[in-house]
Amino acid sequence: MNDAPSKPLVLFMPSGKRGRFPVGTPVLEAARQLGVYVESVCGGRATCGRCQVSVQEGRFAKHGIKSANDHLSPVGPKEERYDRVRGLPEGRRLSCSAQILGDLVIDVPQDTVINAQVVRKAADERVFDRNSAIRMCYVEVEEPDMEKPLGDLDRLKAALVADWHLENLDVDFHLIPKVQSILRKGEWKVTAAVHKDHDDAHPRIVALYPGLKNEAYGIACDIGSTTIAMHLSSLLSGRTVASAGTSNPQIRFGEDLMSRVSYVMMNPDGREAMTLAVREAVNGLIDKVCAEGGVSREDILDSVFVGNPIMHHLFLGIDPTELGGAPFALAVSGAVHVKSSEIGLPMNPGTRTYLLPCIAGHVGADAAAATLSEGPHRQDEMMLLVDIGTNAEIVLGNAARTVAASSPTGPAFEGAEISSGQRAAPGAIERVRIDPITLEPRFRVIGVEQWSDEPGFAEAAAATGVNGICGSGIIEVIAEMYLAGIISEDGVVDGSLGERSPRILENGRTFSYLLHDGEPRITVTQNDVRAIQLAKAALYAGVKLLMDKLGIDHVNRIGLAGAFGTFIDPKFAMVLGLIPDCDLTRVKAVGNAAGTGARMCLLNRSYRREIEETVRKIEKIETALEPKFQEHFVYAMALPNKIDPFPNLSAAVTLPERKVLADAAGEGGARRRRRSRE
Amino acid sequence: MNDAPSKPLVLFMPSGKRGRFPVGTPVLEAARQLGVYVESVCGGRATCGRCQVSVQEGRFAKHGIKSANDHLSPVGPKEERYDRVRGLPEGRRLSCSAQILGDLVIDVPQDTVINAQVVRKAADERVFDRNSAIRMCYVEVEEPDMEKPLGDLDRLKAALVADWHLENLDVDFHLIPKVQSILRKGEWKVTAAVHKDHDDAHPRIVALYPGLKNEAYGIACDIGSTTIAMHLSSLLSGRTVASAGTSNPQIRFGEDLMSRVSYVMMNPDGREAMTLAVREAVNGLIDKVCAEGGVSREDILDSVFVGNPIMHHLFLGIDPTELGGAPFALAVSGAVHVKSSEIGLPMNPGTRTYLLPCIAGHVGADAAAATLSEGPHRQDEMMLLVDIGTNAEIVLGNAARTVAASSPTGPAFEGAEISSGQRAAPGAIERVRIDPITLEPRFRVIGVEQWSDEPGFAEAAAATGVNGICGSGIIEVIAEMYLAGIISEDGVVDGSLGERSPRILENGRTFSYLLHDGEPRITVTQNDVRAIQLAKAALYAGVKLLMDKLGIDHVNRIGLAGAFGTFIDPKFAMVLGLIPDCDLTRVKAVGNAAGTGARMCLLNRSYRREIEETVRKIEKIETALEPKFQEHFVYAMALPNKIDPFPNLSAAVTLPERKVLADAAGEGGARRRRRSRE
Repeated sequence: MNDAPSKPLVLFMPSGKRGRFPVGTPVLEAARQLGVYVESVCGGRATCGRCQVSVQEGRFAKHGIKSANDHLSPVGPKEERYDRVRGLPEGRRLSCSAQILGDLVIDVPQDTVINAQVVRKAADERVFDRNSAIRMCYVEVEEPDMEKPLGDLDRLKAALVADWHLENLDVDFHLIPKVQSILRKGEWKVTAAVHKDHDDAHPRIVALYPGLKNEAYGIACDIGSTTIAMHLSSLLSGRTVASAGTSNPQIRFGEDLMSRVSYVMMNPDGREAMTLAVREAVNGLIDKVCAEGGVSREDILDSVFVGNPIMHHLFLGIDPTELGGAPFALAVSGAVHVKSSEIGLPMNPGTRTYLLPCIAGHVGADAAAATLSEGPHRQDEMMLLVDIGTNAEIVLGNAARTVAASSPTGPAFEGAEISSGQRAAPGAIERVRIDPITLEPRFRVIGVEQWSDEPGFAEAAAATGVNGICGSGIIEVIAEMYLAGIISEDGVVDGSLGERSPRILENGRTFSYLLHDGEPRITVTQNDVRAIQLAKAALYAGVKLLMDKLGIDHVNRIGLAGAFGTFIDPKFAMVLGLIPDCDLTRVKAVGNAAGTGARMCLLNRSYRREIEETVRKIEKIETALEPKFQEHFVYAMALPNKIDPFPNLSAAVTLPERKVLADAAGEGGARRRRRSRE
Repeated sequence: MNDAPSKPLVLFMPSGKRGRFPVGTPVLEAARQLGVYVESVCGGRATCGRCQVSVQEGRFAKHGIKSANDHLSPVGPKEERYDRVRGLPEGRRLSCSAQILGDLVIDVPQDTVINAQVVRKAADERVFDRNSAIRMCYVEVEEPDMEKPLGDLDRLKAALVADWHLENLDVDFHLIPKVQSILRKGEWKVTAAVHKDHDDAHPRIVALYPGLKNEAYGIACDIGSTTIAMHLSSLLSGRTVASAGTSNPQIRFGEDLMSRVSYVMMNPDGREAMTLAVREAVNGLIDKVCAEGGVSREDILDSVFVGNPIMHHLFLGIDPTELGGAPFALAVSGAVHVKSSEIGLPMNPGTRTYLLPCIAGHVGADAAAATLSEGPHRQDEMMLLVDIGTNAEIVLGNAARTVAASSPTGPAFEGAEISSGQRAAPGAIERVRIDPITLEPRFRVIGVEQWSDEPGFAEAAAATGVNGICGSGIIEVIAEMYLAGIISEDGVVDGSLGERSPRILENGRTFSYLLHDGEPRITVTQNDVRAIQLAKAALYAGVKLLMDKLGIDHVNRIGLAGAFGTFIDPKFAMVLGLIPDCDLTRVKAVGNAAGTGARMCLLNRSYRREIEETVRKIEKIETALEPKFQEHFVYAMALPNKIDPFPNLSAAVTLPERKVLADAAGEGGARRRRRSRE
């Protein structure tokens, strides 16, 4: 007997999930059965107001549904009371109370404070399903009864089993002395914050509030060696209510990662001092996002952190010395679960902290988070994900297979080891163009609107100065020098051009290019070019090694993560041969993908399982152990390099650029490619 | 095809468990498969020496086995090495190395330091199976490898999965920063202490030691309102290595429980002060047992605590005020799991504390532990278990059904509210006999060998004095006064006897009995008799109520728990009608049964599950809600009481006692029994 046709068809938007349900089924119940996330704290009592939905009216030919408001039960007394007391927007219904009477298309609102979904700030506006590790559960607890001498806590647990199916509940000890007063203050109506992460069988009460508690927050934080960035999000609506960043105060112990490891090795209390420094900075950021979002620290119940392995270890109080030399052994590679108070982050006594797994000794939880965010493992196309810092963390793969490695690029891309290099800050040159005929440059500095050859530049730049070149500026100036013929494909500054231009300066046996004749004088020296060549060769060799592993010679997509990736122009990155050939429209800055991955794990614990599983499967390649790495490295020293064709690049650069490239490819590149095959 | 006969038969003693195993099976493996507890820390590497067994030679007709030492594989190199380095007693073998070659009877030693089983100190020498929540697991961890970049902790977990089948391991956060140094110190050989209690699916590493760690300890502690008692036991051998007790320092806030609750109600920081006091005392005891046992606090990894509900709450830092009045609501009734450091008991950072469940608002974890120890729920006979304090905690039942209640006896049994009463201490009268003819008494005091009418008493008592009457003395003197006819069955002191004896004194309108004419003068007044009548009537009415519930008029066994139970003579308890009729040989003091129950839970986590399950099933009777309680109480005021026959008592007391009893039963008791039926 098939009774399906007699049941109304319900379609939820925007997810498109649909199913048939008996007349009288509450909409919230239907959503749950279909796995459509609709918030609810009060357990269907029509008091929390979180489960609002609306009905799309009319005929939806595509879906074969004629939806109408009268296919929903009329507003009942509970819903009417909620509307009177707290107000329900026009057209909205409480899905816990509204029952299905006929076919329906239900809109789950994505755009309001109530029920706002998380939208990535990056280009593709993905919507996350939510399933946070913290669930707010309102219950009404039986009052004590001499005939049934269960304790207060035990009756609370019984209510959570009955209303929320939370069996085998554990409870944080700090709550035990408070249970009786909270229950009495709430007149036996309380909201329990229940933490359920990897241990499904034993959820845990981590906070308890008298009455209905309708909000809980979480933080997602990316601890970079230079910058720490944090987002504060509502765990219920998913909305990000505040964001803040700060520089990592560990910089005072060492600019780059290896100098921080050295500091630990040289100073008996170095590890402790750096742990304290980063935790203080994180605490400062928590205060900042709380102030900005108007949220109490006590209301933060969950937190997710990512960072590279050394940041990860120092944050947890682990000595990073082992990461400073082979075999680069992580103390812990799997995901870490800890009470926030145990790592010096006082919020609520029940607040939890989750750290994503590290992939390898040089490929950290940040790379794991970026992987989760960009999802090479979720797609059929071959994607390359690169995060450039002192080490480049490289992930390459698709749904079938994913490999990862790190490559010792050194700090040149960050402006270190460059004569006029500096960190990205006001006054740093970030964009450069060189006229291939006159060899005259024009540039932009951070903090100034105009290019250097535009009117008003001098006045505007007076405030910032023109102080040096930052990472993206270095890439552009060297790429432009190459395209203008100032440097050869082997990276040699052509001194003979000194005849054509006063910009070519002689320094003993080598030459340099005068980018800005101010105070300070900004030049690009032969050593600077070599430093960038070394760095880019290391990066490219790492990428190439992973491509070898997968047996591919082409990638479909490239994601450039982190600040460096955000500011460099993909074309110039390809001119220098930092990245392999790829359709330039498919090379994208993915911003703080690590931060996005952290936020995904904050808002949905399924993402935690996904990345843990993915990291277990990722094949880790240790570049230092691969004989081919050195060979790739040598060939990759040339610009763009001596082995691979860059058809997409040739199509993208304009004349006279194209001419130079063609020369390089024809006379140099092709010849050497032949040679390398012999 | 049945190949069973070809497999040797192995019988383990003393458990008698047996089974057939293929030739070559290690004896330890056979023991595990049969559920015979044989210790092992090193995981079968023949290094810990804990798994020693011996072979019983000869024919065991009863079992049909001809066992011989040559049915076991010869001593191999590993075993030989252990013997050389650490020494193996004559006849002993390491069961992890010795393999089964033929039929065997294996002795698992019970009597040595290695492998000693726990033996209760009370009369019946029960042997506990052991299965402690802490398991010491030695493993050899893979060294870090650049090609497999798993973290140190993750490789440790992998080793624990491979060797000990410990899947889904969590780890205490305090260990994470230490893992790498411990692994390196132990040269990749470490012993993990793994805690596995109620959450089988997620065992937890709570401590980690370089190399082989062959010992771990636990404490079991009974927090009484007057006395705190603690045992320190080896979690591996089960041996109790030290015991200590101290008076509960909370006494300075109030002698009895209710006065301590009042103190909390009257003083804003009263709860905190009392929590601190009891935890300090417990910490002092830990130091004491550690010193006595030569054990470091750090080596204590588990602990079990019991106490009445008010002690339980104060120990955990819970306000006990709710327990001071109806509905006597416990804050928590279920078992409590907590890290010891969270309740102010620093031992090892990973040490755990377990508290048994409370049965009801007046029937605590101590009563639960006593129930576990004496096991009414494990037997077919009907058993009454009574623990007398300010409240009497009463458990009655058998395997089919168990009920529990508390009865407000007040502190009279402890010597309070008695004119010459005092706590059991040197100088207190604890035994009394009265000549029914002359009415002259003789008595013993605590701390003096001789009875008061024996030579040397005066000299010996000079040191202690004769200062008052303790609980057991009160019971005896009043019972003896009744048997000698000084008081009637209604408890009235017969002033007319003043003609026969100068011991009968007049106090206004009532009379008293002069027990000792010294300094101080010790008398038993009419009020004293009334106080004991009230107390014993409350106790008996509670017992009677539970007997009504179960529809029984007779019990098979009586266990008297606690200090009071240890010192009173069952005969006198029955003369006064404290306990129902029962074969006097089956009325036993069960000593600190609560402490025994705590030790059982320390050494075997299955007992935790057993008592949790039992407490859930026990029916709790609130005496205050039962109309019959008042009625029973009134009838029980008489000596022994006005409703129940005491055939066992009549058989037990001798002439002239019997005459008095006969008179009472015949003329008074029988008459009143008739009356009560009308």
